[in-house]
Amino acid sequence: MTSASPQLDENGRLRHFLSIEGLDRTLLLQILNTAESFVGVGERAVKKVPLLRGKTIVNLFFEPSTRTRTTFELAAKRLSADLLSMDVRVSATSKGESLLDTLRNLEAMNCDMFVVRHATSGAAHLMAQHVAPHISVINAGDGRHAHPTQAMLDMFTIRRFKEDFSRLRVAIVGDILHSRVARSQIHALAILGVPEIRVVAPSTLVPAAVESLGVHVYNDLEQGLKDVDVVIMLRLQHERMQSGLLPSEHEYFQAYGLTGERLALAKPDVIVMHPGPLNRGVEIDSEVADGSQSVILRQVTYGIAVRMAVMSMVLGSHASEGGAG
Amino acid sequence: MTSASPQLDENGRLRHFLSIEGLDRTLLLQILNTAESFVGVGERAVKKVPLLRGKTIVNLFFEPSTRTRTTFELAAKRLSADLLSMDVRVSATSKGESLLDTLRNLEAMNCDMFVVRHATSGAAHLMAQHVAPHISVINAGDGRHAHPTQAMLDMFTIRRFKEDFSRLRVAIVGDILHSRVARSQIHALAILGVPEIRVVAPSTLVPAAVESLGVHVYNDLEQGLKDVDVVIMLRLQHERMQSGLLPSEHEYFQAYGLTGERLALAKPDVIVMHPGPLNRGVEIDSEVADGSQSVILRQVTYGIAVRMAVMSMVLGSHASEGGAG
Amino acid sequence: MTSASPQLDENGRLRHFLSIEGLDRTLLLQILNTAESFVGVGERAVKKVPLLRGKTIVNLFFEPSTRTRTTFELAAKRLSADLLSMDVRVSATSKGESLLDTLRNLEAMNCDMFVVRHATSGAAHLMAQHVAPHISVINAGDGRHAHPTQAMLDMFTIRRFKEDFSRLRVAIVGDILHSRVARSQIHALAILGVPEIRVVAPSTLVPAAVESLGVHVYNDLEQGLKDVDVVIMLRLQHERMQSGLLPSEHEYFQAYGLTGERLALAKPDVIVMHPGPLNRGVEIDSEVADGSQSVILRQVTYGIAVRMAVMSMVLGSHASEGGAG
Repeated sequence: MTSASPQLDENGRLRHFLSIEGLDRTLLLQILNTAESFVGVGERAVKKVPLLRGKTIVNLFFEPSTRTRTTFELAAKRLSADLLSMDVRVSATSKGESLLDTLRNLEAMNCDMFVVRHATSGAAHLMAQHVAPHISVINAGDGRHAHPTQAMLDMFTIRRFKEDFSRLRVAIVGDILHSRVARSQIHALAILGVPEIRVVAPSTLVPAAVESLGVHVYNDLEQGLKDVDVVIMLRLQHERMQSGLLPSEHEYFQAYGLTGERLALAKPDVIVMHPGPLNRGVEIDSEVADGSQSVILRQVTYGIAVRMAVMSMVLGSHASEGGAG
Repeated sequence: MTSASPQLDENGRLRHFLSIEGLDRTLLLQILNTAESFVGVGERAVKKVPLLRGKTIVNLFFEPSTRTRTTFELAAKRLSADLLSMDVRVSATSKGESLLDTLRNLEAMNCDMFVVRHATSGAAHLMAQHVAPHISVINAGDGRHAHPTQAMLDMFTIRRFKEDFSRLRVAIVGDILHSRVARSQIHALAILGVPEIRVVAPSTLVPAAVESLGVHVYNDLEQGLKDVDVVIMLRLQHERMQSGLLPSEHEYFQAYGLTGERLALAKPDVIVMHPGPLNRGVEIDSEVADGSQSVILRQVTYGIAVRMAVMSMVLGSHASEGGAG
Repeated sequence: MTSASPQLDENGRLRHFLSIEGLDRTLLLQILNTAESFVGVGERAVKKVPLLRGKTIVNLFFEPSTRTRTTFELAAKRLSADLLSMDVRVSATSKGESLLDTLRNLEAMNCDMFVVRHATSGAAHLMAQHVAPHISVINAGDGRHAHPTQAMLDMFTIRRFKEDFSRLRVAIVGDILHSRVARSQIHALAILGVPEIRVVAPSTLVPAAVESLGVHVYNDLEQGLKDVDVVIMLRLQHERMQSGLLPSEHEYFQAYGLTGERLALAKPDVIVMHPGPLNRGVEIDSEVADGSQSVILRQVTYGIAVRMAVMSMVLGSHASEGGAG
């Protein structure tokens, strides 16, 4: 049988990891369960398993990113893969080569996986459509579209602290309109059965169609936080603010900054999440970011386990196909 | 017995790999045969052999290069060596250290091999003259002089598709005068016994002495392509064009661009090669570059196998000499 | 018992390596003895031991440095650790994250060791105070304060050539005032029992308190060199010269440059050291730098062994503490 999703192979296994959309609950749970087995690797004296030994993974970051690039790099190394880090802004353009020619060449070098971050929505999908059959593409963030490994590490963190998705009330706070992180989170929460998903933002920063996804929109932070189990803060993009779409940092903090006082409106055992890096005093108060309900650093830890899971799953999907010729 | 060539040791084995000149047919065939055994490594599930485990290889690129640097890096990793990538433009000059002091220091760190690209002709030879006895130098391109691993991967590609060098007619098309690639290719083709080597270029871009090497010069592309078995296109250097040595891109393509129509003048089973990166629509039409007679991406694949071969041969040459003290 | 020194654990073992001050003779000798066992690794065909396999070491260089960064990188690789090289100037600041947030995140990624170079004195101490219990910090140079691995490789070199510290006369020549290298060397020489330590510099470049450390100050190079066993030249910092603190290069060489003639005033078996990179013709004559009494390149070789020793010791210190949770 053929699969409708461009990220699944003909047996329904994950071949690429491009977006949460198009995946079902079973597959998301499989990622979470596989990641569980990798959490322990980071805690061992020898933080390394031989699973991807002799595989070549290429980090293709067209946008700068320290954290995401670093966690993919560590995930690759802890799986014993060989990693090639291409600074694509410098290299590919300096001799005027097209993206597709760069891809074809890396394929010809028998690379096995491309981890891609790009400013253009759809860039990872485009690459996945054009790569050779033996290559997997992982989306590490494309434009405003998706950031699926971030969403899955967030789901992993939530499950670690809250167990049952089907009883949760989750609020996502910030610039929903421009956020690929929020988009992927909303899809993942919905697929995993979270009954109440709220987005909290000024009305100018809420996408028009969001309510059709079953999401509840709040323009008031205090109302939005009421009785939630999980608060996910988004990072404020300074670029947006400079372009006049947002008020000043100070005004933003007044209206949408997460303080201890406001957090008290949520459930007593609420957890606070943030994809990082933090703008302390802008979208979140330091007291909350470093407080006992913050699980922000656990997200970083689990991010490596989730990326190891996804990497090993996509390469495992074509393990039985034989060599690439 | 002592050897005349600076790249051979006293037993005639390859110690450095600096240029095709000065090597004989037996040695070139030995490189090709060794590379055959490495082609399979890139096709395996575990693309890694332990041959150079615990060796330290230094990429010393004084000129930028994505493809060549990357293929050397992958070759090193697939041989299990440790790789040090020095961005020499930044580091060595920032504290005003001389090239020779940089070399001495890397030697003192017990590095085993330097892979060097430099804008000055003769840079790799100079380094080979000055390194300690336990160190090998591989020329990854020096000025207009030589690019011997590129030439050997081209020979490897030709042999894979054409078997017998002694029956071939090969045309090299483009700016022969400034091309280290063309120089190395001409020497390699001659040593391997290709009876008819043609260069095709405007007369201003043909070196004066080229006919003394037994090469036939054509100023007309269509005449030059007639009945050839192999076409090797060179990359047009934009720098040359800006300096007035070449006409505009459009005019160049009119006169020397490889199109399907022109390629039809060659033998029916002709293969088309190019060292990359491509200037599509300048020296080569996209239809030809991506067509069924193009072996351009095979060159990339074989490039890793040939570099693995050369790396393992030069380090094997002093395996029996004992430690470095 | 609790330890007064921030770099020792409760059992008196090296947990961080921040400065020579605060360590005793036994511990310095333990570093030298451990390094002895690693010198041989660099001379083997397979320059690799599995000691730190599966550990993650982060190079955090806030100041540029080719040599020190490279030797730490090679030391990490030869211990089989995974190395993360962060170009902190670019990455951490580009999204406005604080140093402490960067640290917290790297901790959350289960990194084991930070090798830090920073322009601010005390930066490594600050980090050591704030890292999680399972993490070690190694100071690779902080401001004008300390450069302890450089001092220990210097001590290692001296012991290799001179055996008994208790009979030596050592002269350190150059800008003592601004040199973290000199500071660490003076402490190490004193702790190891060198009876006569001299500093040689213009009076403007001698720190006020240096004589309280038992050091003899010479403003005249020829008097300072008389009958010494070891001469340690410091690197002249061009920045100082431009700011008017020092005379021109030519004048400096006239007064404080080490020439063969001047070196003849020292003991016949004197050794000449320099941390590199050399300013030939400024603080040292090329004839001396490359002469038979120079051990400058041995310092580079031993630098890797000493760094392997320190890295394996600090990670060994918490081997028995169990996982990090």
